[in-house]
Amino acid sequence: MLRMAILGCGRIGQVHARSIGALGGAQLVAVADAIPEAAEALAASTGARVSDVDAILAARDVDAVIIGTPTDSHFEQIMGAAKAGKAIFCEKPVDMSVANIRKCMQAVQAADLPFMTGFNRRFDPNFAALRARLRAGDIGAVELVSITSRDPSPPPVSYIARSGGLFRDMMIHDFDMARFLMGEEFIRLHAMGSALVDPEIGAAGDVDTAAVILTTASGRICQISNSRRAAYGYDQRIEVHGQRGMLRAENQLESTVEIATETGFRRDPAQHFFLERYEAAYLAEMRAFIAAAKGEARLGPGIVDGLRAQILADAATQSRETGQPVDLAAD
Amino acid sequence: MLRMAILGCGRIGQVHARSIGALGGAQLVAVADAIPEAAEALAASTGARVSDVDAILAARDVDAVIIGTPTDSHFEQIMGAAKAGKAIFCEKPVDMSVANIRKCMQAVQAADLPFMTGFNRRFDPNFAALRARLRAGDIGAVELVSITSRDPSPPPVSYIARSGGLFRDMMIHDFDMARFLMGEEFIRLHAMGSALVDPEIGAAGDVDTAAVILTTASGRICQISNSRRAAYGYDQRIEVHGQRGMLRAENQLESTVEIATETGFRRDPAQHFFLERYEAAYLAEMRAFIAAAKGEARLGPGIVDGLRAQILADAATQSRETGQPVDLAAD
Amino acid sequence: MLRMAILGCGRIGQVHARSIGALGGAQLVAVADAIPEAAEALAASTGARVSDVDAILAARDVDAVIIGTPTDSHFEQIMGAAKAGKAIFCEKPVDMSVANIRKCMQAVQAADLPFMTGFNRRFDPNFAALRARLRAGDIGAVELVSITSRDPSPPPVSYIARSGGLFRDMMIHDFDMARFLMGEEFIRLHAMGSALVDPEIGAAGDVDTAAVILTTASGRICQISNSRRAAYGYDQRIEVHGQRGMLRAENQLESTVEIATETGFRRDPAQHFFLERYEAAYLAEMRAFIAAAKGEARLGPGIVDGLRAQILADAATQSRETGQPVDLAAD
Amino acid sequence: MLRMAILGCGRIGQVHARSIGALGGAQLVAVADAIPEAAEALAASTGARVSDVDAILAARDVDAVIIGTPTDSHFEQIMGAAKAGKAIFCEKPVDMSVANIRKCMQAVQAADLPFMTGFNRRFDPNFAALRARLRAGDIGAVELVSITSRDPSPPPVSYIARSGGLFRDMMIHDFDMARFLMGEEFIRLHAMGSALVDPEIGAAGDVDTAAVILTTASGRICQISNSRRAAYGYDQRIEVHGQRGMLRAENQLESTVEIATETGFRRDPAQHFFLERYEAAYLAEMRAFIAAAKGEARLGPGIVDGLRAQILADAATQSRETGQPVDLAAD
Repeated sequence: MLRMAILGCGRIGQVHARSIGALGGAQLVAVADAIPEAAEALAASTGARVSDVDAILAARDVDAVIIGTPTDSHFEQIMGAAKAGKAIFCEKPVDMSVANIRKCMQAVQAADLPFMTGFNRRFDPNFAALRARLRAGDIGAVELVSITSRDPSPPPVSYIARSGGLFRDMMIHDFDMARFLMGEEFIRLHAMGSALVDPEIGAAGDVDTAAVILTTASGRICQISNSRRAAYGYDQRIEVHGQRGMLRAENQLESTVEIATETGFRRDPAQHFFLERYEAAYLAEMRAFIAAAKGEARLGPGIVDGLRAQILADAATQSRETGQPVDLAAD
Repeated sequence: MLRMAILGCGRIGQVHARSIGALGGAQLVAVADAIPEAAEALAASTGARVSDVDAILAARDVDAVIIGTPTDSHFEQIMGAAKAGKAIFCEKPVDMSVANIRKCMQAVQAADLPFMTGFNRRFDPNFAALRARLRAGDIGAVELVSITSRDPSPPPVSYIARSGGLFRDMMIHDFDMARFLMGEEFIRLHAMGSALVDPEIGAAGDVDTAAVILTTASGRICQISNSRRAAYGYDQRIEVHGQRGMLRAENQLESTVEIATETGFRRDPAQHFFLERYEAAYLAEMRAFIAAAKGEARLGPGIVDGLRAQILADAATQSRETGQPVDLAAD
Repeated sequence: MLRMAILGCGRIGQVHARSIGALGGAQLVAVADAIPEAAEALAASTGARVSDVDAILAARDVDAVIIGTPTDSHFEQIMGAAKAGKAIFCEKPVDMSVANIRKCMQAVQAADLPFMTGFNRRFDPNFAALRARLRAGDIGAVELVSITSRDPSPPPVSYIARSGGLFRDMMIHDFDMARFLMGEEFIRLHAMGSALVDPEIGAAGDVDTAAVILTTASGRICQISNSRRAAYGYDQRIEVHGQRGMLRAENQLESTVEIATETGFRRDPAQHFFLERYEAAYLAEMRAFIAAAKGEARLGPGIVDGLRAQILADAATQSRETGQPVDLAAD
Repeated sequence: MLRMAILGCGRIGQVHARSIGALGGAQLVAVADAIPEAAEALAASTGARVSDVDAILAARDVDAVIIGTPTDSHFEQIMGAAKAGKAIFCEKPVDMSVANIRKCMQAVQAADLPFMTGFNRRFDPNFAALRARLRAGDIGAVELVSITSRDPSPPPVSYIARSGGLFRDMMIHDFDMARFLMGEEFIRLHAMGSALVDPEIGAAGDVDTAAVILTTASGRICQISNSRRAAYGYDQRIEVHGQRGMLRAENQLESTVEIATETGFRRDPAQHFFLERYEAAYLAEMRAFIAAAKGEARLGPGIVDGLRAQILADAATQSRETGQPVDLAAD
């Protein structure tokens, strides 16, 4: 039985708490949040005790921590958890600073601890099935990966100021997915972007519509496009073209119902809310972390994946700002 | 070069004339119609001469006739053409009387002439592809055939009075398709029907919405449903369930375009007009007739198929009226 | 908090136990099963006490019972629960005998107790969405309902002997769905069926492939087809044709992934296992029962729906055996 | 009646000859080809006379010429036709040299002659329907255009040597489509490409897999990807994302048939052959040219469109070779 604690009892912390409750093999023993009411509410619904970060890191009955606090707390909590010898699950981004992520990586590796970065989309059953077929060779060698991600509607401009911008808070998921599918690191990237959805986003120095192309050393290509708006739901699609064919993962619609009238054949919009769209992914992600923390399975996306994705997000931000391609160090 | 004449220069006669023009290996030499202007118009656009039925049957430069006149003229024209030794293509229904069709069949068989019944749907590329896979064993033995046919909108009640009703003018196509796909004759049938679209149709003694179930001697089952109305276009679908799977032919939509908005994902309506929907089928049908009349290919649906479909249409009409199943003689 | 007990700890009892655990507002307090180990296992995983039927019916801390025992126990348990004043959820079929169902209905109505029949498909999110649109008038008045149900593979012949045959154990779900969608009772029915999948099923006097047509007093038509085998998964589809268009609920596939290779574009099979396919339906069903038992919501399918479906299943069985249509009493 | 001549009796010249035959309002009077047998064959099947370029340009009974000769003959033939006052239809590319296209443009404009560039895809019914909805405002302002084009299999390396490479012979169609849909010129472009399909193509200095991103002055973005290989047919898709939704044009499959077996649901491959896939487009294109040449309709893609697409193809070629973005002059 893995004894777990949650740092940060907001929306994503609550999701993980529910997953732990639904899964076997783990137990939520403690929760902490800067807002006492948040911690108390989650404690009440789960039976965990209310605690604080320091106490949790010091607790002998906590094997693993889930870090779902604001990004600027991650570094300190990861370093603390590494020192305390806890298995660590940390939401993306690991940190806004690549240098800090490297420090975390060293600490985690030195302590030889399980660490998983919260790239939940790797655990989406559709995307996971697509990748399994890719790895099984169903379409031969990968030639071009194409990822489309569109949020239903833009976040408040205040969020964007904090988030580091579209490439760091939104496309970072697609960068991780691109790496996950490609199986080879990218060496060069060019990003273009505009504020077409909301001029306030442009005024804040960010974009809301963007396209990026990337290549690997062997010449494989990836294209990613993002928009902060999609009238028809949360648009999450992947297409991989290979030697012997193509694999696509289409959107999850609200139902399988189709209506045919004089205007044609209409199916439902895509599921709108990310927690609904990725419900199965969040559950599978926590199952994977629990298994890995117990040494029963290989780890999912590690801290190095958090690092790589952040490097790509930084590079895309720079490319968009300078209008020039960016070469990515082999590292 | 097959020398052909068209009896009946209405809409369907014009379709066949265009097909002959587009295909090689045949030439339209003469046309006839009770309305002189109709014959003259078709003659003008094709280069054929205006003639009349008797002259065409007597003409030495006519090898084959296409009968597209009103149904009540078919019998006399078929008997005449058989006597004159012409290859015959006749639109469905061959005749409203099964007894008359049998007489035609005897005459045609005695004269050993090519005869093709105008069941154009057998030549639709989609349905033909479905059947080819069926015959190739792609889903193993057939267990259940399901056919859905819905016209975009009901014909005038005056037409229904002449046509013999829904089972004889509309579902007859589906009875032929069912036989074509099943590869075994039906032995029993039960039909239900109602006038839900237009009460005038009910007042005229007919139905506009109907469902029929049929079985074969080996226990295979067919279900057919028809409606005289479909808001979303000309609905023409086939589904065959077999031992190892299912084959479906879906509707042909007006385009491949899909629009996604806040109400969902919408594709175009099905093609509305039967001449557009079955354009490729009419061309393939005439190609098949020309080849068969020249002895280069096996015949498509023969007069026996026209007979069988009419027997099924009569039985369905009777079943609907009496509320009882009808046994079909082995013949 | 609704205090619940489960009679019958087999597969379906376990599903309901999980649902109760996942939902709020109810608590599983006791479980019973003829096989002690089954009851003990479910008790262990839920925290409920092991008990027996009599003790449960007598228990003051049980407000509602879920009857998931073999069908031949239902009658006695329903009568007992009605006498004990418990809210009742009973799996279909309520009883194999229409006379017994009527007695249960009288007892339940006399005691004025909440009773729900386990027609889980009404709670499937897709089918429920389809019906909501139907009721909202999105396609106008219903004209034809078409239901296709195919199991992935046939049950053992031993099961069929007990189950009352295809119309009573399988198509009964479709009869209920047809009534649910049609909003009007059926007055006449004709069934055809054959043993095409497994000759042993035929030898046992049952069929494995069947089609039924039904009509209502106002002339609306329903067609249902069933097969005990579907190579491509658990095939569960509904199509409703109406005045202004058509509504369809398509199958739930294993994923949204499509692969395109030289043989074409291939999507996944339909979900195979009924517990997976109807997972969301089972949860919604139990949520509805709990709410109704607490008086917070209207009841779902009642005992009268169990009765009506059984009457249709009996009639279809008779029609298939006699080859004649069956008139259904207005009751 | 527009009197037309065809220069170049190869595959595409034959397509246009068939279109003229099928359409009303025009007559093919003369054909010419460097290979006498080719001209004679086309003359024989159409009734046109065999002639040569000079005689056709001098002929008083020729109103319009269709130039379907090898690209290096275009310049001289366009200049000659312009001097002779003929309406001109010229296959893409107008010329490999932008400077030459500008000279042609001046000559054509000075002579005030109808000129149409053979960008047939603008006339594809699906793409035309997509654009019509875009112009009708169905998804509001365009934000991102995404075009995918994949040929079934690569051309011989010898062709690539002549063609100017992937961006000039293949992606040029997509550049034209992007301009057609965007309604605003591009100002900047970045291209990446690799030889993944055939190393010989790489050895010849070209690529067979490529992705390009482009932006307009107002910040709209376009992404295009090309491959010289697609196992599943001729892949031709467009997706436009806008303010209020998304428009997509999907592939035309070989039929509407779907087969469901234990491996899932499989539809046909996309139509393979470009003449089949764009059959309707070629016909509509010629209809448009005939109408425009007769002054009855506005012209389709003009010589300026041929120029713009060539400029984009040159820029993409340069960008791919240098690894740097290219700014596009306002012109």
